[in-house]
Amino acid sequence: MASFNASSNALDFLRGCVVDFDPETGLSKTAQTGKRRLSQMKGMFQDEAAREELSRHGDPVVYEFHSLPLPETPGDLAFGCSILNPGKVGDEYFFTKGHFHTILDTGEVYYCLKGHGYMLLEDPQGDWSAQELSPGKAVYVPKRYAHRSINVSATEQLITFFVFRADAGHDYGTIETKGYRKLLVEKNGIPTIVDNPNWKRG
Amino acid sequence: MASFNASSNALDFLRGCVVDFDPETGLSKTAQTGKRRLSQMKGMFQDEAAREELSRHGDPVVYEFHSLPLPETPGDLAFGCSILNPGKVGDEYFFTKGHFHTILDTGEVYYCLKGHGYMLLEDPQGDWSAQELSPGKAVYVPKRYAHRSINVSATEQLITFFVFRADAGHDYGTIETKGYRKLLVEKNGIPTIVDNPNWKRG
Repeated sequence: MASFNASSNALDFLRGCVVDFDPETGLSKTAQTGKRRLSQMKGMFQDEAAREELSRHGDPVVYEFHSLPLPETPGDLAFGCSILNPGKVGDEYFFTKGHFHTILDTGEVYYCLKGHGYMLLEDPQGDWSAQELSPGKAVYVPKRYAHRSINVSATEQLITFFVFRADAGHDYGTIETKGYRKLLVEKNGIPTIVDNPNWKRG
Repeated sequence: MASFNASSNALDFLRGCVVDFDPETGLSKTAQTGKRRLSQMKGMFQDEAAREELSRHGDPVVYEFHSLPLPETPGDLAFGCSILNPGKVGDEYFFTKGHFHTILDTGEVYYCLKGHGYMLLEDPQGDWSAQELSPGKAVYVPKRYAHRSINVSATEQLITFFVFRADAGHDYGTIETKGYRKLLVEKNGIPTIVDNPNWKRG
């Protein structure tokens, strides 16, 4: 069986469409992902020498995500999967760059399909939390909060299905320049929050 | 392990929070569902006598869904699970009432966690489609389209995780009064689209 009277265009966001996302891999037959390699995350980990070394030898894909060609209006919703590989730079777990929305007053929802990790939240005034993600948990990213996924599993990908307002936009620059106030590192095998020694005040 | 520096309020949509949704049942330990019984769907199925008979004998729950206490602003996103039971009224599969958004120009995303069904879409001008749902498929409900889930499995619940703009609002009245132009019924064991003989022009 299949859809009835559906558009012949697989990604018709004006008439409605179905997009597949394999809950085991996060990948889609309908849409490609964009990839972020470690070489594209210069200066974002505490141990920059370790990051550079890893980038030179293999340059692993840290994460990938969908970016569907939706109309960027306040009434549309962007969606897709984020796939964050396991790994560490020194004692710091692999993470996504993290960003504010350009329209700061817009939230986001992530539903975890696979893996184990945290969503690190931080608002411009410094309020922060790290919300634990495992399969079946949804995290609500409130308006005004930067958000970064962190994978604390040694072996498994962290796979989340995300939805945000299609016009929200991505402000990566603030985090790239200032960093987060907090980091999540492994200490004695346990995920532990520490202050970021490289955090730059505004 | 648990979240770090999280609010003591389990549903803190201003600072961020985690809400669990069991992918097997759609249910949450954190939030209750509202239930729709067949007696609350008077006149919505083609065979009203069969519906009344079923309502009198057992009055089954047709579906349930979460309605979290989120701020209803254009920057927030409402989310939760919809759980649609298997069943039929005559040859018509169980469905959700279906609705337009009060703010018509807002879309919605559904990610299917379990089951087999369709999302029936119809805009005010009469354009329609029925988008097939199975685990791992996301359906995009565009702006301006009424949407109704239909469960075509004889045995399994249809469970979807949904996200929409928190201020979108629900207009149930238009569908309750006019109905959909199309129905999904079982003919020789196969889901089949037919015209709705009871559809009322505007």
